[in-house]
Amino acid sequence: MVPLSTGATIGILGGGQLGRLLAIEAARLGFDVHIYCPEAASPAARVAAFETVAAYNDVIALSHFADACDVVTYEFENVPAKTVTLIEASGTPVRPGAKSLDMSQDRAREKAFLNEIGIPTVDYYVLDEGEALDTALAKFGSHAILKTRRDGYDGKGQIMLGGARGKAGLEEARELAGRVPCLLEAFAPFEREISAVVARNATGTIVFEPSENAHQNGILKHCHVPARIADDVRIAAIAAGQKLADALDHIGVLALEFFVMPDGRLKANEFAPRVHNSGHWTPEACLTGQFEQHIRAVVGWPLAPVDRVFDIEMDNLLGDEIAAVPNGYEPGDKIVSYGKRSARPGRKMAHITRRIAPVHQEP
Amino acid sequence: MVPLSTGATIGILGGGQLGRLLAIEAARLGFDVHIYCPEAASPAARVAAFETVAAYNDVIALSHFADACDVVTYEFENVPAKTVTLIEASGTPVRPGAKSLDMSQDRAREKAFLNEIGIPTVDYYVLDEGEALDTALAKFGSHAILKTRRDGYDGKGQIMLGGARGKAGLEEARELAGRVPCLLEAFAPFEREISAVVARNATGTIVFEPSENAHQNGILKHCHVPARIADDVRIAAIAAGQKLADALDHIGVLALEFFVMPDGRLKANEFAPRVHNSGHWTPEACLTGQFEQHIRAVVGWPLAPVDRVFDIEMDNLLGDEIAAVPNGYEPGDKIVSYGKRSARPGRKMAHITRRIAPVHQEP
Repeated sequence: MVPLSTGATIGILGGGQLGRLLAIEAARLGFDVHIYCPEAASPAARVAAFETVAAYNDVIALSHFADACDVVTYEFENVPAKTVTLIEASGTPVRPGAKSLDMSQDRAREKAFLNEIGIPTVDYYVLDEGEALDTALAKFGSHAILKTRRDGYDGKGQIMLGGARGKAGLEEARELAGRVPCLLEAFAPFEREISAVVARNATGTIVFEPSENAHQNGILKHCHVPARIADDVRIAAIAAGQKLADALDHIGVLALEFFVMPDGRLKANEFAPRVHNSGHWTPEACLTGQFEQHIRAVVGWPLAPVDRVFDIEMDNLLGDEIAAVPNGYEPGDKIVSYGKRSARPGRKMAHITRRIAPVHQEP
Repeated sequence: MVPLSTGATIGILGGGQLGRLLAIEAARLGFDVHIYCPEAASPAARVAAFETVAAYNDVIALSHFADACDVVTYEFENVPAKTVTLIEASGTPVRPGAKSLDMSQDRAREKAFLNEIGIPTVDYYVLDEGEALDTALAKFGSHAILKTRRDGYDGKGQIMLGGARGKAGLEEARELAGRVPCLLEAFAPFEREISAVVARNATGTIVFEPSENAHQNGILKHCHVPARIADDVRIAAIAAGQKLADALDHIGVLALEFFVMPDGRLKANEFAPRVHNSGHWTPEACLTGQFEQHIRAVVGWPLAPVDRVFDIEMDNLLGDEIAAVPNGYEPGDKIVSYGKRSARPGRKMAHITRRIAPVHQEP
């Protein structure tokens, strides 16, 4: 892959906070950024040189966008496959590749793929077309989570069944399973959740240190690094991340989330073929952050070292928690705010990192 | 000063690399940026939400710009005083204040002010209107540097006279002194050059550790930190920076450059009432960099800690030196490129920082 020169144009599909933070790092490296997003004046477009406002199936807009960009990447995995095909038909590469998108868009394919390459997931059961939820629960067991196969994120498209919390959702779950393709996941009585953020280019793979993650209503709320896990668990998570990136021929950053079971085994939950909320602490804690690393990979530059320099915590600010900025925080807390106009409840508005202590190691 | 909320709009006069790096940090904090620059698609405008392309004396454009911004700052000190007056007449504050601009635009006033507040400069002599250069040299001494009082930067508007290097410039210097107001500066046989970057807001002042700077043809080429200076010199530089910011009632970042004489005395050379090239290492070496600190000051947020975490070097890439990016550099070198279209000889195109070693201290 011939490295792009500074001044080249990077296209990004999607205009949210991940696109915004990618655009900022692309600009620091000297690239122009072109945001493609159905909404005008998106968080990402407001820091980018160029903006196309069009639907993801707008053939003409996509063709112009492809012609204007030297490489295209994306900030979310639910980009329609046809969008990627249309861009590539114009001769502009889309990175990461089609396989990464394909495997991450459908939870059933994703889980089958992970298990196939030797990364165990929780047990799961794919509902046949037309199969009633009750039939599936009878076969699989009733303490389970129903998830839509496609288009889920931040806890959306998920209903917990069985156990104390599950009763209320059964009617809603029957309706959901009758409407769209779904699967059941066994409830994993995990001890904690961690994730590994991985960068890969044509010559190698570099994995960030795993982060320990806490969710609230299905939305990531807090990360801290180092995670409270044994060394062998850390090493296993890094190895799994590396294996996944290699198996996908991935170019760019991806994130692999795990449940850590009480006996230390890892069960993969899901992966995202992109920069990830659980890597938002990396720019403030490591020699290089996930956003720069992703841009380096997609423009064909060498990956950069990601040694961790600080122990760190990250908190997402959801909804009107943004109103506490800046007075509710210490001056040393690093605030990264997404420039979203409306602070709807639960909406990711910003994140804050706090460096706890320096790591004493050579850079 | 009531702190601005994220989502407010910061106007920046000037569209070069300093505006670009300010705009990026403003965006990370959640602000929208509006760039005012006579040239379209400037480096700064290409990372900003809004752009006004107009002359600095365009009354109507300035009025619209002022109305669209919650606060205005600038990336260069040669903003016409009238531009600031027009913006403030619309009720939009311009920070830093008028005094900082006024004192830095004219080398004669600048030097008089520095000496007046107890910060010694090199000896200098202001040419009277119509005074011939030869008359001035006879009074002041012939080993001197002729400088225009206004509009000089990066070695422009300076001619070395006397000594081995000075002969060739005499004719050119007579012409310059006959055309625009000038002064003579005594040649300072300095041991090294350093600078102190200072941030001030309404409640206090925080000074970055002084940087040691090397110039090439009057253009900053290399910085390294820590500077090779004694502790008392370092302390004196920091104290002078603080004193200057206080004397100016400065809100934002400024940089004060010094000659370090062989006996350790400091002679102030000049100051810039803005973020400065000799502070470009700060984002990669300190808990907070100069760009974020400037934005924090102008929006009324508390200043952030600037403890240095790494020993570091910075190199400017001038003209076609940019062509060596990325292959001529180590993956760990941090590249910040300005997105300039044309790599004219001597033009500042990018800078590179290299972290040499971690500083072992608590953050």
